[in-house]
Amino acid sequence: MSLDRLPTPAPVVDLDVLERNLARMALRAQQAGLALRPHAKTHKTLQIARLQLAEGAIGLTVAKTAEAEVYAGAGFEDLFVAYPVVGVGKPERLLAVARRAKLAVGVDSVEGARALGVPFAAAGMRLRVRIEIDCGQRRTGVRPEDAASLAREVSALPGLELEGVFTHGGHAYEATSDAERGARAGEEAALVATAAAAIREVGLACPVVSLGSTPTLEGLGDAMGGAGVTEARPGNYVFHDATQVALGSCTLEDCALSVLATVVSVPAPDRAVLDAGSKALAADGRRPTPDGHGIVVGTRSRVARLSEEHGVVAVAPGDAFHVGQRVRVVPNHACVVSNLHDVLYAVRRGEVEEGWPVAARGRVE
Amino acid sequence: MSLDRLPTPAPVVDLDVLERNLARMALRAQQAGLALRPHAKTHKTLQIARLQLAEGAIGLTVAKTAEAEVYAGAGFEDLFVAYPVVGVGKPERLLAVARRAKLAVGVDSVEGARALGVPFAAAGMRLRVRIEIDCGQRRTGVRPEDAASLAREVSALPGLELEGVFTHGGHAYEATSDAERGARAGEEAALVATAAAAIREVGLACPVVSLGSTPTLEGLGDAMGGAGVTEARPGNYVFHDATQVALGSCTLEDCALSVLATVVSVPAPDRAVLDAGSKALAADGRRPTPDGHGIVVGTRSRVARLSEEHGVVAVAPGDAFHVGQRVRVVPNHACVVSNLHDVLYAVRRGEVEEGWPVAARGRVE
Repeated sequence: MSLDRLPTPAPVVDLDVLERNLARMALRAQQAGLALRPHAKTHKTLQIARLQLAEGAIGLTVAKTAEAEVYAGAGFEDLFVAYPVVGVGKPERLLAVARRAKLAVGVDSVEGARALGVPFAAAGMRLRVRIEIDCGQRRTGVRPEDAASLAREVSALPGLELEGVFTHGGHAYEATSDAERGARAGEEAALVATAAAAIREVGLACPVVSLGSTPTLEGLGDAMGGAGVTEARPGNYVFHDATQVALGSCTLEDCALSVLATVVSVPAPDRAVLDAGSKALAADGRRPTPDGHGIVVGTRSRVARLSEEHGVVAVAPGDAFHVGQRVRVVPNHACVVSNLHDVLYAVRRGEVEEGWPVAARGRVE
Repeated sequence: MSLDRLPTPAPVVDLDVLERNLARMALRAQQAGLALRPHAKTHKTLQIARLQLAEGAIGLTVAKTAEAEVYAGAGFEDLFVAYPVVGVGKPERLLAVARRAKLAVGVDSVEGARALGVPFAAAGMRLRVRIEIDCGQRRTGVRPEDAASLAREVSALPGLELEGVFTHGGHAYEATSDAERGARAGEEAALVATAAAAIREVGLACPVVSLGSTPTLEGLGDAMGGAGVTEARPGNYVFHDATQVALGSCTLEDCALSVLATVVSVPAPDRAVLDAGSKALAADGRRPTPDGHGIVVGTRSRVARLSEEHGVVAVAPGDAFHVGQRVRVVPNHACVVSNLHDVLYAVRRGEVEEGWPVAARGRVE
């Protein structure tokens, strides 16, 4: 089907750009000397996950138990839940996943870890766990200096096997130059490697040292394996988005995901309204500084305001829009856009080749 | 099932509060002398829509063609798409809906209206249309002074029947006192009634004069039918949310929708992290002024930061959280929360009575 016939709003993946992004990141991880375990949260599809494995990824990262269930159910064999899983029913569900796939899970508290181990111990199994290190984002995770102490407690619990440490340098999303990105990435790598070293010093094994994020991997130097890091978990690189463009970690031409929209109203010369609002583009602000809600491709205009079903374009001087016109918008944050749609349309040179179900959409449990 | 067994994060509807909200708004519309056509976008379920009709609503408002398809397919007989529908395939899809239900659709341009009429004229049918009036929100719609001119053009097009005018006073969401809300509501009513009067002056019928929003209806005086308004389209009132609390149009006890979440991490005394992030709570800011991402019920704390799977609670002095604790969060914007989940759990006094599929979730086309 021609792209011109696709009902709007619709999320569209440019296959040429996607394939280039996949190959480029596989090379980047290879140069850095790191195993690549991409975070599937950005696309939430089985098809792109398979392309990532075909490009040499060793397995997938997911965020939640319910996402692990989707990928294990589809035959993916190596999964890491990069989240301190806690909650009613979750340890039992992870046990079911671990019977189908090699599974590791994050922990950042002894209470959380203890609960995870219970059904595994009862089944005579051990769940691989990785301790989450807070390298400065102040979200979840223990500080590097507390890693060895938690590692000792976790290692003593039944049903668990300490596999390593992981971190997510979310504050890498504040770096806007290659130099700054390099500095942040280096700091993240040093902190997580320090935590691993401290764990080894108390006599425990810590084979996996994992760090995250697309800007971090873009900022890392080569041969980071030599610096004690073993694995990287970038997610966003498959699609990129307007935030990555603003951060300078890619160009607009590297953005594989856009939302196809129709101009439904041009009520004033300086205002055009798209049928893509926050339910199609997501309300996340541009990072590192807010700047509207998406780039209208091929124009100098941007989506200035969103309500649920309306994207209000501030028409830039020289641009003109008419009712019925179809445009593509590069969203601020690709990962949350995929979570809003049931299908991503895979497009090559104006033809819709496939519709990819967003298999892990809404799997927040 | 006890609420204590529900996996988190999960959207929970308190049935006692929902029923009170439904009855209260039905009474409010009656006092105002207005037909009630609630906007189904807030809940997106068939079950709550049926409760609205049982409380005297004359029909439903929806935002998009695909939502109309869901409700018409489920047997709802009177629908208004409060949106200037434009786009490939949409007129034909509306024709299919109109064969099953009494249907009206918004228009705000002659180009958009002309395209809508084509398949209806070919089928020997007429689509009811309502002209959208911009009463100051500067989104879609024509200014009141331009309504008569567009009405004349639209009335001359084949396949259409002009049914009336409608407006949405989104800027009512800036009013924070009863007096201000009353003033905004009065202005909105006066402008849409003026547009209707202008249309009648050029000899056209304009039986429906419709306005919207929960704060508008809260702000309206009684007997607005006498002021020329015929219909109201509030949506949010079924659930309310932290924004409505901030606006003063309801209290926290009137909020029927909350997100049940588990504390997964307490990395510092002033920070607790929930398993509900922007994929469970939505990223919309509190209105009229930003103030975090949700109220943690029964505490003085609020969700200060969101990432996709993390809700970072700024722990208020005197509050304490522990790993594994379950909390309920009243979100900033209920309408977008329902769009993130596949099921809403209907709860009465701690027992989950039913799971309601979010039938119109993601229906953005």
